[in-house]
Amino acid sequence: MRALQFVDKKIAVSELSQPEVAAGEVLVRVVRAGVCNTDIEITRGYFDYSGTLGHEFVGVVEKAEDAAMVGKRIVADINCACGRCAVCLEGGAHHCPTRTVLGIVNRNGAFADYLVVPERNLVVVPETVPDDIAVFAEPVAAALEIQEQLELAQEESVCVIGDGKLGLLIAMTLDASGFKVDLVGRHPERRERLGGFAGRYGIEPSESNYAVVVEATGNPDGFRLAIQLTRPQGILVLKSTYSSGFEFNPAMIVVNEIRVQGSRCGPMDKAVALLASGKLDLRPLIDHRFSLDDGVAAMEQAMARGILKVLLDIS
Amino acid sequence: MRALQFVDKKIAVSELSQPEVAAGEVLVRVVRAGVCNTDIEITRGYFDYSGTLGHEFVGVVEKAEDAAMVGKRIVADINCACGRCAVCLEGGAHHCPTRTVLGIVNRNGAFADYLVVPERNLVVVPETVPDDIAVFAEPVAAALEIQEQLELAQEESVCVIGDGKLGLLIAMTLDASGFKVDLVGRHPERRERLGGFAGRYGIEPSESNYAVVVEATGNPDGFRLAIQLTRPQGILVLKSTYSSGFEFNPAMIVVNEIRVQGSRCGPMDKAVALLASGKLDLRPLIDHRFSLDDGVAAMEQAMARGILKVLLDIS
Repeated sequence: MRALQFVDKKIAVSELSQPEVAAGEVLVRVVRAGVCNTDIEITRGYFDYSGTLGHEFVGVVEKAEDAAMVGKRIVADINCACGRCAVCLEGGAHHCPTRTVLGIVNRNGAFADYLVVPERNLVVVPETVPDDIAVFAEPVAAALEIQEQLELAQEESVCVIGDGKLGLLIAMTLDASGFKVDLVGRHPERRERLGGFAGRYGIEPSESNYAVVVEATGNPDGFRLAIQLTRPQGILVLKSTYSSGFEFNPAMIVVNEIRVQGSRCGPMDKAVALLASGKLDLRPLIDHRFSLDDGVAAMEQAMARGILKVLLDIS
Repeated sequence: MRALQFVDKKIAVSELSQPEVAAGEVLVRVVRAGVCNTDIEITRGYFDYSGTLGHEFVGVVEKAEDAAMVGKRIVADINCACGRCAVCLEGGAHHCPTRTVLGIVNRNGAFADYLVVPERNLVVVPETVPDDIAVFAEPVAAALEIQEQLELAQEESVCVIGDGKLGLLIAMTLDASGFKVDLVGRHPERRERLGGFAGRYGIEPSESNYAVVVEATGNPDGFRLAIQLTRPQGILVLKSTYSSGFEFNPAMIVVNEIRVQGSRCGPMDKAVALLASGKLDLRPLIDHRFSLDDGVAAMEQAMARGILKVLLDIS
């Protein structure tokens, strides 16, 4: 089978044998996959990962212990936890210390004809949800994690900083969930990409005193702006990782008693439910699509300035 | 009257006229005051403050609109809020955008024979509480703010990093409140200062995976250690400010979904109640005492390495 891999610091499509399926796991034929900034960061050496790239995907189960699952179209939680440690038993599987993560930590990812994942990670995709929408389930789950972590009141003012693909998707997800969202970014011409987004989208924030600010730029300027815009006793959600450290003084967090909340993966079942509701159509974020054979070109395209989502049509 | 002031970047005892009392305010004769690291930082130019120093004190009301308050021994919330803005009306007086703060922001402080504060800021001190204990009410309130902000379960593991006077006081306050506390600092020989402290006190933490970590060093190494010791989905409380910025990558906050909670001033009434309960005797933290006439020497002593609390005996 084909796999777009990052090995020996090079991106290349390789021919691999079909993966072995361990107990509790299923074999999935990948239908469609999306390129995430994390994939790009991996190829820049920010994570110590070597193997098949990719973690945003939709596929079809080809082999499973539960025969009823065979043939089902699914998405999957990317965190593969042990299920037995204290962290897992307390419900924190996303933080299992020995977890592997699809295409990120010690487990081959989704930019391949086939992958294997634990059966318990699967979420079946309703037939009404097209592949081009289902492929966004993983980043939508990450966006929904904000609502899992915080008891947000719908009347509170929320500001999303950053209008790259993650920031847009977070703003659209919060908007679809009924929150009043301001989106601050450098590309308000992308407004037409946001479908029914009801929020305000501009280069400047509309206020300086938000109850909740979501940082989705991954750059130090975005981080500093986010702290400035968070009101005293407000919440700053960090959704982006940062490629390197930067100079920063936490004094304002202390004086203003700000809560800085790190936020990573979220609930795949709720993401699929939201996508199935029809309230959130992310297809306008898709810029390009490539075959898996052209996977190297897909990665290069995804790295180009101004490009939002790049998809791989795999089968 | 005498006042230990920081004016024109110099610390000096000056002779001032007794302060005017505005509507809603009371005149307080200061009995005893304590030197805090914030006072020291002000004299190093970290805040843009000029005036009488000091905010930890106990005193006696000399003039008040409410005659029943005259003669009462009191402590006071150091944040003097407008009481009318949206922030105040929502209960966030500590974050009133036009607040003055005793000895820190646009209001003369407690290292003086007299000060004025809003009457609503007062908390009467029970007769059973000696001045040398009551003078700790403000930092104890700051320590209790942690419990105001977080719903801490008593079985959760808490680690306090830093065994300066703030770290010791926070550890003792959490211990007195019934929590299991590890105190990590460079001076475990200070154990004898901690009275009935039941926690573990060492140079190294006893684990690497605390549910709650309190950073009370105010230095970048303490901050970085604190992040390392906070378990995934755990809470890192920042109690110290930092004199300058430092290099830092927030990625671990994101990946481990840590909550970083800034924490400043707390409830003075609860602090007085805890001190009155007899569960918390902070007198072993007192290293030196000076008269107000020797206020400059008191500040110098408070800055000396290894010195914990320095008091001013004022009247």
